[in-house]
Amino acid sequence: MRKILLSLIYSAALTTCLQAQNADSTFIRRIFDEALSNGKCYEDLRSLCKDVGARLAGSAQADMAVYWGFQKLQSYNFDSVYLQPIIVPHWDRGNRESAWIKFEDGSLHKIPITALGGSIGTHGIIEAEIAYFNTLEDLKKATRAEVEGKIVFINQPMNEKEIITFRAYGGCYAIRNSGAVEGSRKGALAVVIRSINLSHDDHPHTGGMTYEDDVKKIPSAAISTNDSEFIKANYKKQKMRLLLDMNCEMREPKPSHNVIAEIRGSKFPNKIITVGGHLDSWDIGEGAHDDGAGIVHSIEALRLLKTLGYRPKHTLRVVLFMNEENGNMGGTTYASWVKERGENHIVAIESDRGGFSPRGFDLDGNNQQLKFLKGFATLFEPYELYRFDKGFGGVDIMPLKEQFPGIALFGFVPDSQRYFDFHHAETDVFEAVNKRELELGAASIAALMFLIDAYYVEQSAVPPKKTSKKN
Amino acid sequence: MRKILLSLIYSAALTTCLQAQNADSTFIRRIFDEALSNGKCYEDLRSLCKDVGARLAGSAQADMAVYWGFQKLQSYNFDSVYLQPIIVPHWDRGNRESAWIKFEDGSLHKIPITALGGSIGTHGIIEAEIAYFNTLEDLKKATRAEVEGKIVFINQPMNEKEIITFRAYGGCYAIRNSGAVEGSRKGALAVVIRSINLSHDDHPHTGGMTYEDDVKKIPSAAISTNDSEFIKANYKKQKMRLLLDMNCEMREPKPSHNVIAEIRGSKFPNKIITVGGHLDSWDIGEGAHDDGAGIVHSIEALRLLKTLGYRPKHTLRVVLFMNEENGNMGGTTYASWVKERGENHIVAIESDRGGFSPRGFDLDGNNQQLKFLKGFATLFEPYELYRFDKGFGGVDIMPLKEQFPGIALFGFVPDSQRYFDFHHAETDVFEAVNKRELELGAASIAALMFLIDAYYVEQSAVPPKKTSKKN
Repeated sequence: MRKILLSLIYSAALTTCLQAQNADSTFIRRIFDEALSNGKCYEDLRSLCKDVGARLAGSAQADMAVYWGFQKLQSYNFDSVYLQPIIVPHWDRGNRESAWIKFEDGSLHKIPITALGGSIGTHGIIEAEIAYFNTLEDLKKATRAEVEGKIVFINQPMNEKEIITFRAYGGCYAIRNSGAVEGSRKGALAVVIRSINLSHDDHPHTGGMTYEDDVKKIPSAAISTNDSEFIKANYKKQKMRLLLDMNCEMREPKPSHNVIAEIRGSKFPNKIITVGGHLDSWDIGEGAHDDGAGIVHSIEALRLLKTLGYRPKHTLRVVLFMNEENGNMGGTTYASWVKERGENHIVAIESDRGGFSPRGFDLDGNNQQLKFLKGFATLFEPYELYRFDKGFGGVDIMPLKEQFPGIALFGFVPDSQRYFDFHHAETDVFEAVNKRELELGAASIAALMFLIDAYYVEQSAVPPKKTSKKN
Repeated sequence: MRKILLSLIYSAALTTCLQAQNADSTFIRRIFDEALSNGKCYEDLRSLCKDVGARLAGSAQADMAVYWGFQKLQSYNFDSVYLQPIIVPHWDRGNRESAWIKFEDGSLHKIPITALGGSIGTHGIIEAEIAYFNTLEDLKKATRAEVEGKIVFINQPMNEKEIITFRAYGGCYAIRNSGAVEGSRKGALAVVIRSINLSHDDHPHTGGMTYEDDVKKIPSAAISTNDSEFIKANYKKQKMRLLLDMNCEMREPKPSHNVIAEIRGSKFPNKIITVGGHLDSWDIGEGAHDDGAGIVHSIEALRLLKTLGYRPKHTLRVVLFMNEENGNMGGTTYASWVKERGENHIVAIESDRGGFSPRGFDLDGNNQQLKFLKGFATLFEPYELYRFDKGFGGVDIMPLKEQFPGIALFGFVPDSQRYFDFHHAETDVFEAVNKRELELGAASIAALMFLIDAYYVEQSAVPPKKTSKKN
């Protein structure tokens, strides 16, 4: 009798479970249908790229981006839309940025160049012999005599054998961030790097660099991969000199804002599930993939759930973070601020890897959270998301980890093959984004938010652990 | 004692199995490394697209493509390279192809148009009122009075909700193939269709259409999705007329060739594993994704295995099929020919879905073969291939099924989101293909060929079954 009873209970539980799965799969199908048939994110991206454009923190365009984000979020009638004040660094590229290679016969060859974000200017044209290094490690091993009074060129390429291109980026990141410091330690006048991208093309790629207090600041810039290959092919045949002229400079910090909207939770209004990307971009191109895509993904994810009449249990919040690219003041200020307000952040999702075809989600969290994520694999399979594994969440949401130990951070993972063709370059424009690929990303994120809201059980807090910041 | 013995045997077997898996994974890693570091397929594609260009069967460029393929395969020093003579239809677009919308006030609006492959010309300008239909089914239901003496326009869009875009293509294919016949049955003067693509743009997409013997031939063409939307928005407000001028025509069949190369098998030289794509393309654009990508994928797959010193047990053959687009004479002739030669084809692989990021492989075969394919899933996972399922092999290799019942047909599956932006249109050019995505596809196919050669056990032949041909 007991056996029969148990078996009845089991089969009832199984039926309920299957019904839930069916209902979930139906609702997720509705999310994708709405995104693909009536999606707003592609037009939103066009508007952000074309009506606002490049928007480096501290610039007038960044102010316009805040205005744009506020208006846009208001237009979707979420429960509340507000600004969170922050202070951001203000680096300005100036209006002079040129470079020439000078050959032994005195002839000049002009090449496109981009100052690295944070670099000081050259204060007029500087000219020196090129000190060529294949890698940052080679520069570190060089003698002072090999470097002093020269312009260092580091020609370290991304490793094309890495399948996930972000891993190759990780392997090159230091040449951009620390090249100037390492060159300056040995008396270099400036440091120029090979652009961090995988394709052989003519576009220099910018990105953040840092100085150290006890090391003299010298200018730093990037040239294209094609010009890097040209120097490599010729520097042993004859002495080549480089002329640089840049009037970029760091100015006084400026006020700016994160832009926030939310749908209030019906059951746990003080437990927050956040989704976001970064509203700022570098100041060349249009910041379409980096991170216009993440911005419109996040807005669209919330809009999709609202449009379909979903009433969340937890508060669903979209945050358009300011200043990810050169300071992460949006992310760090947000994390402290919400902690002070006594909110509880249980999950955060970030989209900051471009608007390409969805592949899955990375989790920065524990095994239990990974099991939770992998539990939805079959629901995502019809949409061709297969990759659910431990990995990186996102730069903007990373500081939440210090404030909310036990929080699960999810990073949206699109296909990564083309990302670095556009990253921080003038090629990162609206036209480089495919409408369907963008829409599928927004729907994937909305589906994950829905599943988290419906099923996520908060982890018990573990003792806080200091995590290193990644910029 | 027996238990211990068995357990020793098991653990020895397990060790061997694990060692095999490790050796396989190492060799596959070498395939991907070679493709990504020293790959030839991107330059091969550039050359096919730029030095040969569009190459419709019967055209001078198609002859050049045969020449190109022969030279290219010879340059890689395979064991043998040869041509297989075939006869192909020869349709020619001519040099007149224009269309105008005429409004009630007599004003004209010129729109880009493309004749559908196989269509007759208009023999001068024809002009008639537009008979608008949302779908082919609506046209079939229409009365003769609604159609007679008019130019039918069928505005059936691809279903944007399909995640795999080829499914949406399948749902629209008939409007292009049979639109003219259905219109002609009711007395239409010509049939114009909405281009079969998912994006809203200004490029008409061509593609094959057919006539029926007992139905009068009328001209058939496609206009862009944007112009289709324009007509849809306006045709109820005022009567719109269409003017068409096309001097395309079907000419006499011409001789052409499939181009073939192989590495002879060391153990089963008469058992063939074929890989191929189609060398012909439509006559607009450069046939980069369709199917230049498949051609260079196939060549590169064989080159990768040869370069890495792999000695296959079975004969590995690459076939550059001619005339997939408008007749499939390459595929059908090849299948009969190899059967007559007494060869045994055990597996064929086709790449004809573009040069995008690899997603997996489709199998046209039985459950046992599917189990075989899925058995390699973990070996493909590091390269982000996750989709291994039953599906379509390819148009060119399809006829092999009739000749070799039990053959396993594999279709390479790249990401499908962007494919129809380029398909059969002037946008399908070399620049639309990403180097890494292309290289990853070639490596994926080479890896599958290697695994098949190493592990595939031929299926017992099942009685021949007539299969329907898909063009």
